[in-house]
Amino acid sequence: MSDYKGRIEQYLETLYQNPVDDTLDTAMMYSLLAGGKRIRPVLLFSTLELFGAEPEKGLRTAAAIEMIHTYSLIHDDLPAMDNDDYRRGKMTNHKVYGEDVAILAGDGLLTDSFYQISTDENLSTEQRSRLITAISGAAGSRGMVAGQVLDMKAEKKQLTLDELKTVHHHKTGDLIRVCFECAGIIADQPEAVIRQLVTIGRHFGLLFQIKDDILDVEGSFEEMGKSAGSDIENAKSTYVSLLGLENAKSAMNELYSDTEKMIDALQGESAALLELLQFIIKRDK
Amino acid sequence: MSDYKGRIEQYLETLYQNPVDDTLDTAMMYSLLAGGKRIRPVLLFSTLELFGAEPEKGLRTAAAIEMIHTYSLIHDDLPAMDNDDYRRGKMTNHKVYGEDVAILAGDGLLTDSFYQISTDENLSTEQRSRLITAISGAAGSRGMVAGQVLDMKAEKKQLTLDELKTVHHHKTGDLIRVCFECAGIIADQPEAVIRQLVTIGRHFGLLFQIKDDILDVEGSFEEMGKSAGSDIENAKSTYVSLLGLENAKSAMNELYSDTEKMIDALQGESAALLELLQFIIKRDK
Repeated sequence: MSDYKGRIEQYLETLYQNPVDDTLDTAMMYSLLAGGKRIRPVLLFSTLELFGAEPEKGLRTAAAIEMIHTYSLIHDDLPAMDNDDYRRGKMTNHKVYGEDVAILAGDGLLTDSFYQISTDENLSTEQRSRLITAISGAAGSRGMVAGQVLDMKAEKKQLTLDELKTVHHHKTGDLIRVCFECAGIIADQPEAVIRQLVTIGRHFGLLFQIKDDILDVEGSFEEMGKSAGSDIENAKSTYVSLLGLENAKSAMNELYSDTEKMIDALQGESAALLELLQFIIKRDK
Repeated sequence: MSDYKGRIEQYLETLYQNPVDDTLDTAMMYSLLAGGKRIRPVLLFSTLELFGAEPEKGLRTAAAIEMIHTYSLIHDDLPAMDNDDYRRGKMTNHKVYGEDVAILAGDGLLTDSFYQISTDENLSTEQRSRLITAISGAAGSRGMVAGQVLDMKAEKKQLTLDELKTVHHHKTGDLIRVCFECAGIIADQPEAVIRQLVTIGRHFGLLFQIKDDILDVEGSFEEMGKSAGSDIENAKSTYVSLLGLENAKSAMNELYSDTEKMIDALQGESAALLELLQFIIKRDK
């Protein structure tokens, strides 16, 4: 995992060397290199490993997905959205560069992400085209952006379990799922395998979210003296609030073993991917 | 011109039929169908006509460019940017749907624009890849988005003529220029012709801007009783403020006849493109 994380960090550092405007590039790099787990690139590289494909072939696609993830955080933190002053212990983009530059830095990262893929000479034009279809579909108005709107609306009401799944499916799930799909395209896998990868990717996204919801509650039990989980405070619908803590854990464990079986069935070099699967449900933050 | 305008309008109306979220789609369509001259699609279609290429082949690319133009207007109108309440006589997106939805509607249109091209079955994957490279390059942090940042900074100082040209080159020029470049790619033209088209496209962008600056001043002379041109009011650097009105007009006329010659040299069906060239410098608004 840390090898793959290092690889993507290193590549991202090489971007934006010849600015048209310094302020814009500085603002984009500020958020792009602000840390984070780089979970999406690591998922993509680990899935490539499953098929014995060169990580190099996935480098620019992984960077593109991370650029899209970064833009979504910049826009999400804006005063008109979640109005957050800090992220990962650092000031948010608009707090440092102003709202106008932050909006444009997000727009720049999003637009440039597609340039990363369309100019990737390690891939055929057929692959580039398919990757851009997959990623723009996952990130756009049928994917992540729709999820953001659904999430904003969800804050004002109690959701059913199905509604909650739909919100997460789009808001966070689509961009996680697409990492698996992209790896399949880059590793030239047949359609049937890519469909399997999409299902595995959906499970990863869901596991990630259920675990987040559990952590929000258990974190507050463990660290006595701190306020209760922020989700409870905000009366937000979560897997824990809808299913109860024990049922949420059972659902997570069941999904975990289903996903493990699906990965095994692909009969590849699965060590890295299985380690990630474990990491997602065992992490404590 | 009105034939091509109708064609793109008709196509744009077919978009966003199956929303994940109604609010998002309604907000995107509100701005996408808010009128305007559709000058970029018309430029693209007219350049295709020059080479006798089917307009149909350029339809999705033209739509993509118009989606990008629309997203840039939505974000530009935001309170943190130009803070405009009205555009083309209608309320701006954020005035109708709120700032949060407006930011996301812009993000959605931008992301979806690349999906339009990457899924265009009228084009080869080679063409799709090249079109996405050209458009993301023109619209991203080396193009339009950089131009927006430069323009924001320019409001606070006096520019030289070269600086003014750089601002416009990126802020409005790049997306106009890329319409010509895209038409060359779609019509399978050799590199040398595409380079010619890029130069012609740059000239169109520049002509458009000089004429805008002239209109801002002459409008105020014609319509007595109204306040002076808004550029003068804002002490903004323009071609007129830097060159003087008469020199700006000479520069425009000289550029016009150079561009006309370049179009003639391509020896194609140039009627539509020459009509547009005339329209740009003769329009009164």
